[in-house]
Amino acid sequence: MATQPIIKHKQRVETINGIKTQVVCTEFSNFIFIVVTQYGKMGTLISVTPDSRNADIGTRTFTTKVLLGKDEALTHVYAKNLVTFVSQEAGNKAVLLGLALKDSTIEGLKAMKEAIKSCQVW
Amino acid sequence: MATQPIIKHKQRVETINGIKTQVVCTEFSNFIFIVVTQYGKMGTLISVTPDSRNADIGTRTFTTKVLLGKDEALTHVYAKNLVTFVSQEAGNKAVLLGLALKDSTIEGLKAMKEAIKSCQVW
Repeated sequence: MATQPIIKHKQRVETINGIKTQVVCTEFSNFIFIVVTQYGKMGTLISVTPDSRNADIGTRTFTTKVLLGKDEALTHVYAKNLVTFVSQEAGNKAVLLGLALKDSTIEGLKAMKEAIKSCQVW
Repeated sequence: MATQPIIKHKQRVETINGIKTQVVCTEFSNFIFIVVTQYGKMGTLISVTPDSRNADIGTRTFTTKVLLGKDEALTHVYAKNLVTFVSQEAGNKAVLLGLALKDSTIEGLKAMKEAIKSCQVW
């Protein structure tokens, strides 16, 4: 017996600085799954989890962890930069992020954030 | 500039042994992302990777690794049972599997495999 799908999913293809960029967003009850790929690959998989320790003083930190792929310092920076706002807007939900970037300039990342916004599932 | 999405995605809701079961499949070039959830959660995240070592003698083994969530022996068994056929059908692609099961009876798993088949993106 098949009923209506209720897991929200959106995707988008944008050309960012001349590079075809695919964004996929899927919402689960405990995680938002986001992939930003310029290779078609799922790429490095990073969990971005809001830290509850500082919630009482109004600031919130995030823990990033590379689950799959190369663990490079910049990957953590990009991950936080791209999806901190998603977690915040989604009521501090964790984000599972796949990243496969050719272009990681500030302008590129800014355009990717806009593309993620346009795939809002939270 | 937005163009056509080309990342294949399918999802389905089935009632399996009286339990609402959601299946989500998304194809990336190096991974197939599959979630089978009876809680709406993404659940335990497992990578199921075909092992190349035995390819020459015609058999292929799979390495399962829990990336997120509780690492229980049965999780590896369920993961292999559910998605080995996907990897094989997809030309030995790796599978990233999210599992959140209430019912893990043999009949339940069989029905889930059918649901995954009906969401074929590979």
